[in-house]
Amino acid sequence: MRALARAITLVERRDPAVRELQQALRDRVRPAYVVGFTGAPGTGKSTIVDGLISLLRKQERSVAVIATDPNSPFTGGAILGDRIRMQRHALDPKVFIRSMGARGHLGGLSLAAREAIRLLGAFGFDPVILETVGVGQSELEVAAVADTTVVVLTPNLGDGVQMIKAGILEIADIFVVNKSDLEGHKRVALELRGMLNLSPKAAWRPPIIATAAVRQEGIEELWAAIEAHRKHLETTGRASAQAEKRLKDETAEVVAEVARERARDALGEDSKLSQRLLQDGTPYEVADEILRNHIMNSE
Amino acid sequence: MRALARAITLVERRDPAVRELQQALRDRVRPAYVVGFTGAPGTGKSTIVDGLISLLRKQERSVAVIATDPNSPFTGGAILGDRIRMQRHALDPKVFIRSMGARGHLGGLSLAAREAIRLLGAFGFDPVILETVGVGQSELEVAAVADTTVVVLTPNLGDGVQMIKAGILEIADIFVVNKSDLEGHKRVALELRGMLNLSPKAAWRPPIIATAAVRQEGIEELWAAIEAHRKHLETTGRASAQAEKRLKDETAEVVAEVARERARDALGEDSKLSQRLLQDGTPYEVADEILRNHIMNSE
Repeated sequence: MRALARAITLVERRDPAVRELQQALRDRVRPAYVVGFTGAPGTGKSTIVDGLISLLRKQERSVAVIATDPNSPFTGGAILGDRIRMQRHALDPKVFIRSMGARGHLGGLSLAAREAIRLLGAFGFDPVILETVGVGQSELEVAAVADTTVVVLTPNLGDGVQMIKAGILEIADIFVVNKSDLEGHKRVALELRGMLNLSPKAAWRPPIIATAAVRQEGIEELWAAIEAHRKHLETTGRASAQAEKRLKDETAEVVAEVARERARDALGEDSKLSQRLLQDGTPYEVADEILRNHIMNSE
Repeated sequence: MRALARAITLVERRDPAVRELQQALRDRVRPAYVVGFTGAPGTGKSTIVDGLISLLRKQERSVAVIATDPNSPFTGGAILGDRIRMQRHALDPKVFIRSMGARGHLGGLSLAAREAIRLLGAFGFDPVILETVGVGQSELEVAAVADTTVVVLTPNLGDGVQMIKAGILEIADIFVVNKSDLEGHKRVALELRGMLNLSPKAAWRPPIIATAAVRQEGIEELWAAIEAHRKHLETTGRASAQAEKRLKDETAEVVAEVARERARDALGEDSKLSQRLLQDGTPYEVADEILRNHIMNSE
C-alpha cells in the first residue's frame, strides 16, 4: 500500500520516474474497470461512493477511489473532505482511497488520473472509482477516462435548463437522483426522463436510479446498473474500441505535456525569446520557434 | 460585428486562419480588461452580468461577454441559455455576447478564450466579461485568463467544507453573495469572512459584495470593487507581471496544442504506430517516437 501511495504521489508531481515505473509494471497491467462519479458539490457523491465500497467489500473485491480535486493547482495539496467521509474504510487493506490534484497545469488531471488508474490495476484494484467535484470541465475529464459515468443529482439541483447547461445529458451513462426522501425527487426524475426522450435514440438508454445514500438505499440497484452498462459495452464491442481510443488520447496528451514543459523551459531560460514574445503581443511566432528548436527529442 | 462573430467562430473551430488574422490585427491590439465570473449553476451569474452590462452601457463603454460552455465538446454547439437571458442587449451594437464551447479537446477552452479576448480588444470592446458554468476545472481556466475573478455564491450553496472543496478561496479576487434577500445570506458572508481570515495575509483582501441581481441591487458596488482591484494590480506592478505570465502560458499552450494535433494525426494515419501502442499498453514509447518523427515543424 505504501509503495502504491508513493507511486501515485510521483504521478501527481508529474515525475519522470513514473514512466519507468509504468514500463516496469507493464506485464502486471490488468486494466481496472473505471466508474466515474460526478455532480455538483453537496449532492452526496462521497456518501454514495462510501456505500458502494461497503457493498463491493462484501463481495470480496478490492476497490480504489481517486477523488480528483480541482483546487489543488493553487494550494499544492488536496483537501481531505472525501477521505474524511470514507474514514471507516481507512484500515481496510483492500480499499485504497486517495485525493488527487492536478498540480502544475490545467489538463494535467486527466493524464495523472489515467496513470494512477493503470498503477491501481497493476496492484489488483478493480473497480477504480473516480470521483470529481463540480459541474464543468472536470466532468468532461471524468467522462473521457471512465468506462461508466454516473451523474449524481438531487431534488435541489434546480430547473432543467441548468441541467442542460451543465451538459450532463451527453456524458451520463447512469443518473442517480440522491436524497430520494426529499420533496421534488419524482419531479427531477420525470424531467430527466422527458429530456432523455428528446435526445436521439442510442443503443444505451441511461437508467435513473433513486438513492438515499445516507441510509444505504438504492446502492445495490446502482451497482446492478453499472454492471449492466459494463456488459453492454462488452457485448457491443464498444469496450475495446473505447480502450483503444483512450490509449491514443493518452499518448497525444503525453506528447502535448512534454511539448508544453519544453516550451516553458525554453521561455524561462531564453530571455531573448520572452522579449520577442512581449514585442509580438501574440504567441504564434515564438511558438513556432520553440517547436523548431526546442521540442525535438534530444535523446 | 459580423466579421467579429465569424472570427470567433474560427477561433472556436481552432482554424489555422486565426493565426494570420491575429497577426494582421496585431497593431490594433489593445488588451481589454478581463473580468471572470464563476460559480455553481443557478447562482445567478448571468443575471449579474446582465446588470453589469446595463451599468457599463450607461457609462458609454463597449462591453463583450464570452460565456464558456463546458458541454460543447459533446454537442458541437453551445446552449443559448446565457444569450437568452441577456436578450435585451441583443440589438445594441456596443454589446457583444457569445456562448463559446471548447470543441475538439479538453483544455482548448482557455486557449480559445484568450484568442477571442484578443480579437475583442482589437475591435474596441473593454471590458471583456468571461462567464463560466460550474465549479471545477472551468473555474481554474477562468482564473488563469481573467484579470479579476469574481466568484458568485448564494445562501443555498451549502456548508463551508463544500466551499473549500471547490477551491474558491484561492481563485477569488471578489466574492459576490447573490440573492441577498434569501435567508442565510448573512451567515454565508460571515463564514466566508471567517475562512478568509484563516488564510495567509495577502496584499489584496477579497471583498464580499451582497447583490440582489434580479432587482439590480449591489451591481454598482460590484463594479466599484472590480475597479479597485484593477487599480491594485496596476499600482503594485502585478498587472504587467500577469500579462507577461499569461502570454507565456498561452505560448506554451499553443505549442502543446500543435504537438497534440500532430500526435493525433500521426496516430490516425500510421496504423503501425497504433498497433504498437496497443501491444505496449503504455503510451510512453510511442509518444517518444511521435516527438522524434512528427512534431518537428516541417516548414
